Amino acid sequence: MKVKQIMDNEFIAVTADMDIVDASIKMEAHKKFTTPVLDDDNKLIGWITSLDVTRGFRENHKKVKDIMHTTEDIVQVHEDDPSRIAVLAASKHKVVSIPVLNTKGEVVGVVRTVDIVQTLSKLYEIKVYKIFDAVLQELKGVSWDELMEASAIVTKRETGERITGKDYEQRIKEATSGEAIWATGGLEKFFVGFFAIGELVIARKIAKARK
Amino acid sequence: MKVKQIMDNEFIAVTADMDIVDASIKMEAHKKFTTPVLDDDNKLIGWITSLDVTRGFRENHKKVKDIMHTTEDIVQVHEDDPSRIAVLAASKHKVVSIPVLNTKGEVVGVVRTVDIVQTLSKLYEIKVYKIFDAVLQELKGVSWDELMEASAIVTKRETGERITGKDYEQRIKEATSGEAIWATGGLEKFFVGFFAIGELVIARKIAKARK
Repeated sequence: MKVKQIMDNEFIAVTADMDIVDASIKMEAHKKFTTPVLDDDNKLIGWITSLDVTRGFRENHKKVKDIMHTTEDIVQVHEDDPSRIAVLAASKHKVVSIPVLNTKGEVVGVVRTVDIVQTLSKLYEIKVYKIFDAVLQELKGVSWDELMEASAIVTKRETGERITGKDYEQRIKEATSGEAIWATGGLEKFFVGFFAIGELVIARKIAKARK
Repeated sequence: MKVKQIMDNEFIAVTADMDIVDASIKMEAHKKFTTPVLDDDNKLIGWITSLDVTRGFRENHKKVKDIMHTTEDIVQVHEDDPSRIAVLAASKHKVVSIPVLNTKGEVVGVVRTVDIVQTLSKLYEIKVYKIFDAVLQELKGVSWDELMEASAIVTKRETGERITGKDYEQRIKEATSGEAIWATGGLEKFFVGFFAIGELVIARKIAKARK
């Protein structure tokens, strides 16, 4: 996934000569805490946040150019960068939004942490049974019931809990991978659990084939 | 992981009778776009954003209580909620921060999307070889080289690319699960790829044992 697929291209922008009163009205109307400052060619020349505006009001500044940050202080990404670059930049610099540039240096969008959270949580929030479904496609010759039974055995082995394949199926019916990852204590452990199931089910499949 | 483990407990707060000039100075000093409004018992009675402050300045309001949102409009979470509840709330309501309450109704922290992005990206950014390491612990009797070789075979099968186990090892040396998930097109496909490797390596292990 590229930055351009997660960016907001309905972003707002202001100019350096704009009155800060007008900039604040625009930012409030669109509920944006930050906005790029563009020149006539849509090139990035600055950046303001609503905190720069409150300071501007208090200190009696008039124009956007009096309160803006200049480009060397602005975290930026390219529209064709992998979207994880934007995620890492937001995480590292702790900014709520990042301007996105094209090869001409024009601003074509803004990546916001709220959008990143939405994208990441969607990625996490896939249903666990969908992963089992995909795995079943891969493990040709194993039935859904055999997979559930193996999962119940691994659960018993790891938690001491005595559950049946049907119980396990019920349990994962509504569970999402997000819940499972948080519950098991991280992606790594989630994988190991899945592999334990895989190992058992594959061993059983091979044993059956040899009979 | 619980909300209290990802929240910021060094959060700032303002009171309803505070002058908005003072509130703006405090928010700017701490670089916070939002802040809870608390009563004398640390109970949440309102919420302001820096956009409320800019509007307040323009419209000549004086006190925080003149510009604040009241509690019924505020997305809130509990400190003992699973942290994914905060992630889902931030994603659904598209807010940059959420106040965290304890059982007494006191505000004990604030969850920010920048912190969520950091937590999620850390979870994603574990090294792929660490997952392989964990898997190896689970698959007793399989060597690292056998695992790499199986991975190279699956890669060849799926992409047509002719690579060796050593090539594969080199490739995953620096790769993170974040890159791998984005590259394969989602957690689901990432899992299926891993399972294909697991299936092969387990089949080989069993075949070896039978010799």
